[in-house]
Amino acid sequence: MKLVSFIQDGQARYGVIQGDAFVAPAADFLARYPDLTAVLAANALPEFQAAVQSGGQRIDPAQVKAQPVIPAPGKVICVGLNYKTHVAETKRADSEFPSLFLRFADSLAAHGDEVLRPAFSERFDWEGELAFVVGKGGRHIAAENAFEHIAGYTCFNDVSVRDWQRHTHQFTPGKNFPGTGPLGPYLLTRDEVSDVTQMALETRVNGQVMQHASLADLIFDIPTIVAYVSRFTPLSPGDVIATGTPGGVGDRREPPLYMKEGDVVEVEITGLGVLRNRIGTDRSAA
Amino acid sequence: MKLVSFIQDGQARYGVIQGDAFVAPAADFLARYPDLTAVLAANALPEFQAAVQSGGQRIDPAQVKAQPVIPAPGKVICVGLNYKTHVAETKRADSEFPSLFLRFADSLAAHGDEVLRPAFSERFDWEGELAFVVGKGGRHIAAENAFEHIAGYTCFNDVSVRDWQRHTHQFTPGKNFPGTGPLGPYLLTRDEVSDVTQMALETRVNGQVMQHASLADLIFDIPTIVAYVSRFTPLSPGDVIATGTPGGVGDRREPPLYMKEGDVVEVEITGLGVLRNRIGTDRSAA
Repeated sequence: MKLVSFIQDGQARYGVIQGDAFVAPAADFLARYPDLTAVLAANALPEFQAAVQSGGQRIDPAQVKAQPVIPAPGKVICVGLNYKTHVAETKRADSEFPSLFLRFADSLAAHGDEVLRPAFSERFDWEGELAFVVGKGGRHIAAENAFEHIAGYTCFNDVSVRDWQRHTHQFTPGKNFPGTGPLGPYLLTRDEVSDVTQMALETRVNGQVMQHASLADLIFDIPTIVAYVSRFTPLSPGDVIATGTPGGVGDRREPPLYMKEGDVVEVEITGLGVLRNRIGTDRSAA
Repeated sequence: MKLVSFIQDGQARYGVIQGDAFVAPAADFLARYPDLTAVLAANALPEFQAAVQSGGQRIDPAQVKAQPVIPAPGKVICVGLNYKTHVAETKRADSEFPSLFLRFADSLAAHGDEVLRPAFSERFDWEGELAFVVGKGGRHIAAENAFEHIAGYTCFNDVSVRDWQRHTHQFTPGKNFPGTGPLGPYLLTRDEVSDVTQMALETRVNGQVMQHASLADLIFDIPTIVAYVSRFTPLSPGDVIATGTPGGVGDRREPPLYMKEGDVVEVEITGLGVLRNRIGTDRSAA
Protein backbone atom coordinates (compact mmCIF):
# COMPACT_ATOMS: atom_id res chain seq x y z
CA MET A 1 0.00 0.00 0.00
CA LYS A 2 0.93 3.59 -0.63
CA LEU A 3 -0.19 5.47 2.47
CA VAL A 4 -0.89 9.20 2.52
CA SER A 5 -1.87 11.76 5.16
CA PHE A 6 -3.80 14.87 4.22
CA ILE A 7 -6.25 17.52 5.40
CA GLN A 8 -9.73 17.60 3.88
CA ASP A 9 -12.14 20.39 4.83
CA GLY A 10 -10.02 21.18 7.84
CA GLN A 11 -9.97 17.61 9.12
CA ALA A 12 -6.82 15.50 9.35
CA ARG A 13 -7.33 12.25 7.38
CA TYR A 14 -5.33 9.51 5.73
CA GLY A 15 -5.76 6.87 3.10
CA VAL A 16 -4.15 4.91 0.30
CA ILE A 17 -3.33 5.83 -3.27
CA GLN A 18 -5.32 3.83 -5.83
CA GLY A 19 -4.65 4.92 -9.38
CA ASP A 20 -5.27 8.65 -9.57
CA ALA A 21 -7.30 8.83 -6.37
CA PHE A 22 -6.85 8.69 -2.63
CA VAL A 23 -9.14 6.20 -0.92
CA ALA A 24 -9.86 6.96 2.72
CA PRO A 25 -11.50 4.77 5.35
CA ALA A 26 -14.98 5.70 6.57
CA ALA A 27 -15.72 7.83 9.62
CA ASP A 28 -16.12 4.92 12.06
CA PHE A 29 -12.60 3.68 11.26
CA LEU A 30 -11.25 7.22 11.56
CA ALA A 31 -12.92 7.56 14.96
CA ARG A 32 -11.07 4.50 16.19
CA TYR A 33 -7.75 5.37 14.54
CA PRO A 34 -7.41 9.16 14.18
CA ASP A 35 -4.12 9.01 12.26
CA LEU A 36 -1.67 6.61 10.63
CA THR A 37 0.38 6.45 13.81
CA ALA A 38 -2.68 5.08 15.62
CA VAL A 39 -3.12 2.46 12.87
CA LEU A 40 0.52 1.42 13.20
CA ALA A 41 0.39 1.37 17.00
CA ALA A 42 -2.60 -1.00 16.87
CA ASN A 43 -0.91 -3.16 14.23
CA ALA A 44 -4.07 -2.50 12.23
CA LEU A 45 -2.76 -2.19 8.65
CA PRO A 46 -4.68 -5.33 7.54
CA GLU A 47 -7.87 -3.96 9.10
CA PHE A 48 -7.19 -0.61 7.43
CA GLN A 49 -6.75 -2.31 4.06
CA ALA A 50 -10.05 -4.13 4.48
CA ALA A 51 -11.76 -0.88 5.50
CA VAL A 52 -10.66 1.02 2.41
CA GLN A 53 -11.52 -1.93 0.13
CA SER A 54 -15.02 -2.41 1.48
CA GLY A 55 -16.24 1.06 2.43
CA GLY A 56 -13.52 3.42 1.27
CA GLN A 57 -14.29 6.93 0.10
CA ARG A 58 -12.60 8.06 -3.13
CA ILE A 59 -11.03 11.50 -2.84
CA ASP A 60 -9.54 13.71 -5.54
CA PRO A 61 -5.98 14.52 -4.38
CA ALA A 62 -6.37 17.98 -5.91
CA GLN A 63 -9.12 18.73 -3.38
CA VAL A 64 -7.02 18.10 -0.26
CA LYS A 65 -3.92 19.50 1.38
CA ALA A 66 -1.08 16.97 1.62
CA GLN A 67 0.64 16.41 4.96
CA PRO A 68 3.96 14.75 5.75
CA VAL A 69 3.26 11.00 5.48
CA ILE A 70 3.43 10.92 9.27
CA PRO A 71 2.21 14.41 10.25
CA ALA A 72 3.56 14.56 13.81
CA PRO A 73 6.13 11.86 14.56
CA GLY A 74 7.18 11.47 18.16
CA LYS A 75 10.82 11.26 17.11
CA VAL A 76 12.56 12.33 13.91
CA ILE A 77 16.10 10.94 13.88
CA CYS A 78 18.48 11.77 11.06
CA VAL A 79 21.70 9.98 10.15
CA GLY A 80 24.41 12.28 8.85
CA LEU A 81 27.38 11.27 6.73
CA ASN A 82 26.14 7.85 5.65
CA TYR A 83 27.52 7.62 2.09
CA LYS A 84 31.24 7.55 1.35
CA THR A 85 30.71 10.10 -1.44
CA HIS A 86 29.23 12.60 1.04
CA VAL A 87 31.80 11.88 3.77
CA ALA A 88 34.51 12.52 1.18
CA GLU A 89 33.07 15.84 -0.01
CA THR A 90 32.74 17.10 3.59
CA LYS A 91 36.38 16.09 4.19
CA ARG A 92 35.43 14.30 7.41
CA ALA A 93 37.02 11.14 8.74
CA ASP A 94 35.21 7.80 8.69
CA SER A 95 33.39 6.98 11.89
CA GLU A 96 32.76 3.73 13.68
CA PHE A 97 29.24 4.91 14.63
CA PRO A 98 26.37 6.64 12.81
CA SER A 99 26.31 10.39 13.33
CA LEU A 100 22.83 11.37 14.52
CA PHE A 101 20.96 14.64 14.84
CA LEU A 102 17.32 15.32 15.63
CA ARG A 103 14.58 17.31 13.95
CA PHE A 104 11.48 18.74 15.54
CA ALA A 105 8.22 17.50 14.00
CA ASP A 106 7.39 21.06 12.93
CA SER A 107 10.48 21.09 10.73
CA LEU A 108 8.80 18.55 8.41
CA ALA A 109 6.85 19.48 5.29
CA ALA A 110 4.53 17.77 2.84
CA HIS A 111 4.97 16.81 -0.78
CA GLY A 112 4.02 19.92 -2.73
CA ASP A 113 4.58 22.36 0.11
CA GLU A 114 6.56 25.47 -0.65
CA VAL A 115 9.79 25.12 1.34
CA LEU A 116 10.84 28.48 2.68
CA ARG A 117 14.42 29.72 2.75
CA PRO A 118 14.89 32.17 5.63
CA ALA A 119 15.58 35.57 4.09
CA PHE A 120 18.72 35.96 6.22
CA SER A 121 20.56 32.96 4.74
CA GLU A 122 21.72 32.41 1.16
CA ARG A 123 22.97 28.87 1.87
CA PHE A 124 19.80 26.80 1.39
CA ASP A 125 20.77 23.31 0.32
CA TRP A 126 19.13 20.02 -0.68
CA GLU A 127 19.77 16.57 0.81
CA GLY A 128 17.83 13.74 -0.83
CA GLU A 129 17.40 10.75 1.50
CA LEU A 130 15.54 7.52 2.07
CA ALA A 131 13.50 7.60 5.27
CA PHE A 132 11.70 4.79 7.01
CA VAL A 133 8.88 4.80 9.54
CA VAL A 134 8.75 2.61 12.62
CA GLY A 135 5.74 0.28 12.76
CA LYS A 136 6.42 -1.86 15.81
CA GLY A 137 8.21 -0.08 18.64
CA GLY A 138 11.01 -1.46 20.71
CA ARG A 139 14.27 -1.02 22.56
CA HIS A 140 17.49 -2.95 22.05
CA ILE A 141 16.27 -4.30 18.72
CA ALA A 142 18.70 -6.80 17.22
CA ALA A 143 19.88 -5.98 13.70
CA GLU A 144 18.52 -9.30 12.42
CA ASN A 145 15.02 -8.32 13.59
CA ALA A 146 15.18 -4.70 12.40
CA PHE A 147 12.93 -5.01 9.34
CA GLU A 148 10.10 -6.43 11.48
CA HIS A 149 9.95 -3.02 13.16
CA ILE A 150 9.62 -1.01 9.95
CA ALA A 151 6.21 0.03 8.64
CA GLY A 152 7.43 1.39 5.33
CA TYR A 153 9.63 3.72 3.31
CA THR A 154 9.38 7.20 1.86
CA CYS A 155 11.44 10.00 0.31
CA PHE A 156 12.88 12.75 2.47
CA ASN A 157 14.58 16.02 1.65
CA ASP A 158 16.70 17.11 4.60
CA VAL A 159 16.86 20.73 3.43
CA SER A 160 19.61 22.48 5.35
CA VAL A 161 20.50 26.08 6.18
CA ARG A 162 24.24 25.55 5.90
CA ASP A 163 25.52 28.62 7.73
CA TRP A 164 23.22 27.91 10.68
CA GLN A 165 24.19 24.22 10.60
CA ARG A 166 27.83 25.23 11.04
CA HIS A 167 27.46 27.95 13.67
CA THR A 168 28.90 25.34 16.04
CA HIS A 169 29.84 21.66 15.87
CA GLN A 170 26.19 20.69 16.62
CA PHE A 171 23.99 20.69 13.50
CA THR A 172 20.69 21.46 15.32
CA PRO A 173 19.82 25.02 14.15
CA GLY A 174 20.45 24.52 10.42
CA LYS A 175 18.32 21.37 10.41
CA ASN A 176 15.29 22.70 12.23
CA PHE A 177 13.88 25.69 10.41
CA PRO A 178 10.11 25.10 10.17
CA GLY A 179 8.82 23.25 7.13
CA THR A 180 12.26 22.47 5.69
CA GLY A 181 12.01 18.67 5.73
CA PRO A 182 9.59 17.38 3.07
CA LEU A 183 8.55 13.76 3.76
CA GLY A 184 6.53 11.93 1.11
CA PRO A 185 4.75 11.75 -1.29
CA TYR A 186 3.59 8.45 0.25
CA LEU A 187 4.71 5.72 2.62
CA LEU A 188 5.21 2.45 0.76
CA THR A 189 4.49 -0.36 3.18
CA ARG A 190 7.32 -2.77 3.85
CA ASP A 191 5.55 -5.78 2.32
CA GLU A 192 6.02 -4.17 -1.11
CA VAL A 193 9.79 -3.70 -0.72
CA SER A 194 11.80 -6.86 -1.22
CA ASP A 195 15.29 -5.34 -1.08
CA VAL A 196 16.14 -1.77 -0.13
CA THR A 197 19.64 -2.13 -1.55
CA GLN A 198 18.12 -2.39 -5.02
CA MET A 199 16.71 1.13 -4.74
CA ALA A 200 18.32 4.15 -6.38
CA LEU A 201 17.98 7.72 -5.12
CA GLU A 202 18.12 10.84 -7.25
CA THR A 203 17.84 14.51 -6.31
CA ARG A 204 17.09 17.04 -9.04
CA VAL A 205 16.90 20.84 -8.95
CA ASN A 206 14.98 22.34 -11.86
CA GLY A 207 15.40 19.00 -13.61
CA GLN A 208 19.19 18.85 -13.27
CA VAL A 209 20.49 15.75 -11.47
CA MET A 210 22.39 16.81 -8.35
CA GLN A 211 22.62 13.52 -6.44
CA HIS A 212 22.42 9.97 -7.68
CA ALA A 213 23.22 6.96 -5.53
CA SER A 214 22.34 3.38 -4.79
CA LEU A 215 20.88 2.52 -1.40
CA ALA A 216 23.40 -0.34 -1.43
CA ASP A 217 26.01 2.33 -0.71
CA LEU A 218 24.82 3.24 2.79
CA ILE A 219 27.78 3.02 5.18
CA PHE A 220 25.45 2.08 8.06
CA ASP A 221 22.63 -0.02 6.62
CA ILE A 222 19.09 0.01 7.96
CA PRO A 223 19.48 -2.94 10.36
CA THR A 224 22.61 -1.34 11.82
CA ILE A 225 20.81 2.00 12.26
CA VAL A 226 17.80 0.41 13.95
CA ALA A 227 20.01 -1.58 16.31
CA TYR A 228 22.18 1.42 17.21
CA VAL A 229 19.35 3.92 17.71
CA SER A 230 17.19 1.55 19.73
CA ARG A 231 20.13 0.90 22.02
CA PHE A 232 19.85 4.42 23.50
CA THR A 233 16.22 5.40 22.88
CA PRO A 234 12.97 3.43 22.64
CA LEU A 235 11.40 3.50 19.18
CA SER A 236 7.64 3.91 18.84
CA PRO A 237 5.15 3.55 15.99
CA GLY A 238 5.33 6.55 13.67
CA ASP A 239 8.90 7.50 14.52
CA VAL A 240 10.82 8.58 11.44
CA ILE A 241 14.45 7.76 10.72
CA ALA A 242 16.23 9.37 7.76
CA THR A 243 19.19 7.40 6.47
CA GLY A 244 21.46 10.22 5.27
CA THR A 245 22.34 11.88 1.99
CA PRO A 246 24.85 10.89 -0.70
CA GLY A 247 27.46 13.12 -2.31
CA GLY A 248 26.37 16.01 -4.49
CA VAL A 249 25.01 18.58 -2.05
CA GLY A 250 25.19 22.18 -3.26
CA ASP A 251 27.38 23.47 -0.48
CA ARG A 252 30.31 21.22 -1.44
CA ARG A 253 30.28 22.05 -5.16
CA GLU A 254 32.87 24.25 -6.83
CA PRO A 255 31.48 26.86 -6.93
CA PRO A 256 28.77 26.19 -4.34
CA LEU A 257 25.19 26.10 -5.59
CA TYR A 258 22.17 26.90 -3.43
CA MET A 259 18.41 26.92 -3.88
CA LYS A 260 16.53 30.16 -4.44
CA GLU A 261 12.93 31.23 -4.80
CA GLY A 262 11.16 29.50 -7.67
CA ASP A 263 13.51 26.53 -7.83
CA VAL A 264 11.84 23.11 -7.91
CA VAL A 265 13.60 20.35 -5.99
CA GLU A 266 12.73 16.68 -6.44
CA VAL A 267 13.80 13.55 -4.58
CA GLU A 268 12.98 10.33 -6.41
CA ILE A 269 13.59 6.82 -5.07
CA THR A 270 12.82 3.57 -6.86
CA GLY A 271 9.23 2.61 -6.07
CA LEU A 272 8.71 5.55 -3.72
CA GLY A 273 7.67 8.16 -6.27
CA VAL A 274 8.83 11.74 -6.62
CA LEU A 275 8.85 14.17 -3.69
CA ARG A 276 8.53 17.60 -5.30
CA ASN A 277 8.74 21.01 -3.64
CA ARG A 278 9.05 24.57 -4.82
CA ILE A 279 11.37 26.92 -2.95
CA GLY A 280 10.04 30.17 -1.54
CA THR A 281 11.37 32.82 0.79
CA ASP A 282 10.40 33.43 4.41
CA ARG A 283 10.59 37.20 4.76
CA SER A 284 9.12 37.22 8.29
CA ALA A 285 12.50 38.36 9.57
CA ALA A 286 15.03 39.86 7.23
CA MET B 1 4.30 30.19 42.74
CA LYS B 2 6.15 26.89 42.88
CA LEU B 3 4.46 24.69 40.27
CA VAL B 4 4.60 20.90 40.33
CA SER B 5 3.35 18.09 38.10
CA PHE B 6 2.58 14.66 39.52
CA ILE B 7 0.51 11.50 39.16
CA GLN B 8 -2.11 10.75 41.78
CA ASP B 9 -4.04 7.48 41.63
CA GLY B 10 -2.98 7.03 38.02
CA GLN B 11 -4.16 10.48 36.95
CA ALA B 12 -1.81 13.22 35.74
CA ARG B 13 -2.30 16.34 37.87
CA TYR B 14 -0.49 19.52 38.84
CA GLY B 15 -0.55 22.10 41.56
CA VAL B 16 1.47 24.48 43.70
CA ILE B 17 3.65 23.88 46.72
CA GLN B 18 2.28 25.50 49.89
CA GLY B 19 4.36 24.71 52.96
CA ASP B 20 4.66 20.94 53.20
CA ALA B 21 1.74 20.23 50.88
CA PHE B 22 0.82 20.30 47.24
CA VAL B 23 -2.39 22.19 46.52
CA ALA B 24 -4.15 21.15 43.31
CA PRO B 25 -7.04 22.81 41.51
CA ALA B 26 -10.42 21.11 41.52
CA ALA B 27 -11.71 18.76 38.83
CA ASP B 28 -13.51 21.42 36.79
CA PHE B 29 -10.30 23.41 36.39
CA LEU B 30 -8.40 20.25 35.50
CA ALA B 31 -11.03 19.42 32.88
CA ARG B 32 -10.42 22.75 31.18
CA TYR B 33 -6.63 22.69 31.57
CA PRO B 34 -5.38 19.09 31.63
CA ASP B 35 -1.75 20.01 32.32
CA LEU B 36 0.55 22.94 33.10
CA THR B 37 1.29 23.43 29.41
CA ALA B 38 -2.43 24.04 28.82
CA VAL B 39 -2.45 26.59 31.66
CA LEU B 40 0.54 28.37 30.13
CA ALA B 41 -0.91 28.26 26.61
CA ALA B 42 -4.10 29.93 27.86
CA ASN B 43 -2.11 32.51 29.84
CA ALA B 44 -4.17 31.25 32.77
CA LEU B 45 -1.68 31.36 35.67
CA PRO B 46 -3.74 34.07 37.51
CA GLU B 47 -6.89 31.97 37.07
CA PHE B 48 -4.96 28.92 38.28
CA GLN B 49 -3.77 30.82 41.35
CA ALA B 50 -7.33 31.86 42.16
CA ALA B 51 -8.54 28.28 41.66
CA VAL B 52 -6.05 26.78 44.12
CA GLN B 53 -6.71 29.55 46.66
CA SER B 54 -10.47 29.20 46.63
CA GLY B 55 -11.16 25.52 45.99
CA GLY B 56 -7.77 23.85 46.09
CA GLN B 57 -7.30 20.31 47.30
CA ARG B 58 -4.40 19.70 49.71
CA ILE B 59 -2.33 16.67 48.76
CA ASP B 60 0.44 14.94 50.68
CA PRO B 61 3.49 14.88 48.35
CA ALA B 62 4.41 11.48 49.79
CA GLN B 63 1.18 10.05 48.32
CA VAL B 64 1.88 11.01 44.72
CA LYS B 65 4.47 10.25 42.04
CA ALA B 66 6.42 13.32 40.95
CA GLN B 67 6.72 14.11 37.24
CA PRO B 68 9.12 16.40 35.42
CA VAL B 69 7.76 19.93 36.06
CA ILE B 70 6.60 19.89 32.44
CA PRO B 71 5.89 16.19 31.81
CA ALA B 72 5.92 16.20 27.99
CA PRO B 73 7.46 19.35 26.52
CA GLY B 74 7.06 19.81 22.78
CA LYS B 75 10.72 20.85 22.53
CA VAL B 76 13.65 20.30 24.88
CA ILE B 77 16.58 22.42 23.75
CA CYS B 78 19.92 22.23 25.54
CA VAL B 79 22.78 24.70 25.34
CA GLY B 80 26.21 23.11 25.54
CA LEU B 81 29.43 24.81 26.54
CA ASN B 82 27.93 27.92 28.12
CA TYR B 83 30.37 28.58 30.99
CA LYS B 84 34.01 29.51 30.41
CA THR B 85 35.03 27.00 33.10
CA HIS B 86 33.37 24.14 31.18
CA VAL B 87 34.61 25.30 27.76
CA ALA B 88 38.13 25.35 29.22
CA GLU B 89 37.94 21.84 30.71
CA THR B 90 36.67 20.41 27.40
CA LYS B 91 39.57 22.15 25.63
CA ARG B 92 37.21 23.57 22.99
CA ALA B 93 37.52 26.95 21.33
CA ASP B 94 35.19 29.82 22.13
CA SER B 95 32.22 30.11 19.80
CA GLU B 96 30.31 33.08 18.47
CA PHE B 97 27.04 31.11 18.74
CA PRO B 98 25.42 28.89 21.37
CA SER B 99 25.98 25.18 20.76
CA LEU B 100 22.60 23.42 20.81
CA PHE B 101 21.48 19.84 21.03
CA LEU B 102 18.04 18.34 21.52
CA ARG B 103 16.55 15.88 23.96
CA PHE B 104 13.47 13.74 23.49
CA ALA B 105 10.76 14.33 26.10
CA ASP B 106 11.13 10.71 27.24
CA SER B 107 14.72 11.44 28.25
CA LEU B 108 13.44 13.63 31.10
CA ALA B 109 12.93 12.43 34.66
CA ALA B 110 11.28 13.69 37.84
CA HIS B 111 12.73 14.86 41.12
CA GLY B 112 13.22 11.71 43.16
CA ASP B 113 13.26 9.33 40.20
CA GLU B 114 16.00 6.75 40.08
CA VAL B 115 18.20 7.71 37.14
CA LEU B 116 19.43 4.61 35.38
CA ARG B 117 22.93 4.16 34.04
CA PRO B 118 22.90 1.75 31.07
CA ALA B 119 24.81 -1.33 32.14
CA PHE B 120 27.01 -1.13 29.04
CA SER B 121 28.56 2.24 29.93
CA GLU B 122 30.73 3.16 32.91
CA ARG B 123 30.87 6.86 31.95
CA PHE B 124 27.69 8.21 33.57
CA ASP B 125 28.20 11.89 34.37
CA TRP B 126 26.32 14.79 36.00
CA GLU B 127 25.66 18.24 34.52
CA GLY B 128 23.84 20.64 36.84
CA GLU B 129 22.00 23.37 34.92
CA LEU B 130 19.42 26.11 35.15
CA ALA B 131 16.46 25.45 32.84
CA PHE B 132 13.61 27.74 31.95
CA VAL B 133 10.17 27.02 30.54
CA VAL B 134 8.50 29.01 27.78
CA GLY B 135 5.22 30.66 28.78
CA LYS B 136 4.31 32.75 25.76
CA GLY B 137 5.35 31.28 22.44
CA GLY B 138 6.91 33.17 19.57
CA ARG B 139 9.34 33.35 16.71
CA HIS B 140 12.04 35.96 16.13
CA ILE B 141 11.79 37.14 19.73
CA ALA B 142 13.97 40.17 20.40
CA ALA B 143 16.44 39.76 23.26
CA GLU B 144 14.93 42.76 25.06
CA ASN B 145 11.54 40.99 25.14
CA ALA B 146 12.88 37.55 26.05
CA PHE B 147 11.82 37.47 29.70
CA GLU B 148 8.18 38.17 28.75
CA HIS B 149 8.21 34.74 27.08
CA ILE B 150 9.45 32.84 30.13
CA ALA B 151 7.01 31.13 32.50
CA GLY B 152 9.55 30.21 35.12
CA TYR B 153 12.75 28.48 36.18
CA THR B 154 13.79 25.10 37.48
CA CYS B 155 16.81 22.87 38.11
CA PHE B 156 17.97 20.41 35.48
CA ASN B 157 20.50 17.62 35.55
CA ASP B 158 21.67 16.89 31.99
CA VAL B 159 23.00 13.45 32.90
CA SER B 160 25.22 12.26 30.08
CA VAL B 161 26.52 8.90 28.87
CA ARG B 162 29.92 10.23 27.85
CA ASP B 163 31.12 7.44 25.58
CA TRP B 164 27.84 7.52 23.62
CA GLN B 165 27.96 11.33 23.52
CA ARG B 166 31.37 11.11 21.81
CA HIS B 167 30.70 8.27 19.37
CA THR B 168 30.64 11.04 16.75
CA HIS B 169 30.76 14.85 16.73
CA GLN B 170 26.96 14.98 17.32
CA PHE B 171 26.02 14.62 21.01
CA THR B 172 22.56 13.08 20.40
CA PRO B 173 22.92 9.49 21.66
CA GLY B 174 24.67 10.25 24.97
CA LYS B 175 22.05 12.87 25.83
CA ASN B 176 18.95 10.83 25.10
CA PHE B 177 18.93 7.68 27.20
CA PRO B 178 15.45 7.45 28.75
CA GLY B 179 14.91 9.10 32.11
CA THR B 180 18.38 10.66 32.31
CA GLY B 181 17.33 14.32 32.50
CA PRO B 182 15.76 15.17 35.89
CA LEU B 183 13.79 18.44 35.73
CA GLY B 184 12.47 19.90 38.99
CA PRO B 185 11.63 19.78 41.85
CA TYR B 186 9.33 22.69 40.94
CA LEU B 187 8.93 25.49 38.44
CA LEU B 188 9.34 28.87 40.13
CA THR B 189 7.24 31.37 38.23
CA ARG B 190 9.07 34.32 36.71
CA ASP B 191 7.32 36.93 38.87
CA GLU B 192 9.30 35.57 41.86
CA VAL B 193 12.70 35.91 40.18
CA SER B 194 14.03 39.44 40.07
CA ASP B 195 17.50 38.73 38.69
CA VAL B 196 18.71 35.39 37.35
CA THR B 197 22.33 36.55 37.49
CA GLN B 198 22.07 36.61 41.30
CA MET B 199 21.45 32.86 41.37
CA ALA B 200 24.14 30.31 42.23
CA LEU B 201 24.17 26.71 41.02
CA GLU B 202 25.69 23.78 42.86
CA THR B 203 25.93 20.10 41.94
CA ARG B 204 26.72 17.58 44.66
CA VAL B 205 27.33 13.84 44.48
CA ASN B 206 26.91 12.07 47.82
CA GLY B 207 27.17 15.49 49.45
CA GLN B 208 30.48 16.43 47.83
CA VAL B 209 30.38 19.67 45.82
CA MET B 210 31.27 18.93 42.18
CA GLN B 211 30.11 22.11 40.44
CA HIS B 212 29.59 25.58 41.82
CA ALA B 213 28.94 28.60 39.63
CA SER B 214 27.10 31.88 39.39
CA LEU B 215 24.41 32.27 36.75
CA ALA B 216 26.09 35.60 36.02
CA ASP B 217 28.82 33.53 34.34
CA LEU B 218 26.72 32.24 31.43
CA ILE B 219 28.55 33.02 28.18
CA PHE B 220 25.24 33.32 26.33
CA ASP B 221 22.70 34.83 28.73
CA ILE B 222 19.01 33.97 28.69
CA PRO B 223 17.89 36.84 26.42
CA THR B 224 20.60 35.88 23.90
CA ILE B 225 19.54 32.23 23.99
CA VAL B 226 15.84 33.05 23.50
CA ALA B 227 16.62 35.38 20.61
CA TYR B 228 18.94 32.89 18.90
CA VAL B 229 16.71 29.83 19.31
CA SER B 230 13.53 31.61 18.24
CA ARG B 231 15.30 32.77 15.10
CA PHE B 232 15.29 29.21 13.69
CA THR B 233 12.40 27.51 15.48
CA PRO B 234 9.08 28.73 16.90
CA LEU B 235 8.86 28.46 20.69
CA SER B 236 5.63 27.26 22.29
CA PRO B 237 4.25 27.19 25.83
CA GLY B 238 5.87 24.40 27.83
CA ASP B 239 9.03 24.20 25.76
CA VAL B 240 12.09 23.67 27.94
CA ILE B 241 15.48 25.29 27.40
CA ALA B 242 18.47 24.23 29.50
CA THR B 243 21.20 26.83 29.77
CA GLY B 244 24.29 24.63 29.99
CA THR B 245 26.58 23.31 32.70
CA PRO B 246 29.60 24.92 34.40
CA GLY B 247 33.02 23.37 34.92
CA GLY B 248 33.40 20.41 37.24
CA VAL B 249 31.88 17.51 35.32
CA GLY B 250 33.21 14.10 36.23
CA ASP B 251 34.54 13.17 32.82
CA ARG B 252 37.06 16.05 32.79
CA ARG B 253 38.48 15.37 36.26
CA GLU B 254 41.90 13.87 36.86
CA PRO B 255 41.25 11.02 37.34
CA PRO B 256 37.72 10.97 35.87
CA LEU B 257 34.87 10.35 38.29
CA TYR B 258 31.55 8.82 37.27
CA MET B 259 28.26 8.02 38.98
CA LYS B 260 27.43 4.47 40.03
CA GLU B 261 24.51 2.66 41.57
CA GLY B 262 23.51 4.09 44.93
CA ASP B 263 25.06 7.50 44.40
CA VAL B 264 22.83 10.48 45.17
CA VAL B 265 23.19 13.47 42.87
CA GLU B 266 21.77 16.87 43.74
CA VAL B 267 21.42 20.10 41.75
CA GLU B 268 20.61 23.15 43.87
CA ILE B 269 19.95 26.64 42.54
CA THR B 270 19.17 29.72 44.62
CA GLY B 271 15.41 29.84 45.14
CA LEU B 272 14.74 26.78 43.00
CA GLY B 273 15.24 24.11 45.65
CA VAL B 274 17.20 20.87 45.45
CA LEU B 275 16.72 18.39 42.60
CA ARG B 276 17.73 15.04 44.08
CA ASN B 277 18.08 11.69 42.33
CA ARG B 278 19.56 8.34 43.18
CA ILE B 279 21.52 6.47 40.53
CA GLY B 280 20.51 2.96 39.54
CA THR B 281 21.48 0.55 36.80
CA ASP B 282 19.49 -0.39 33.72
CA ARG B 283 20.35 -4.04 33.17
CA SER B 284 17.79 -4.51 30.38
CA ALA B 285 20.68 -4.95 27.97
CA ALA B 286 24.13 -5.77 29.21
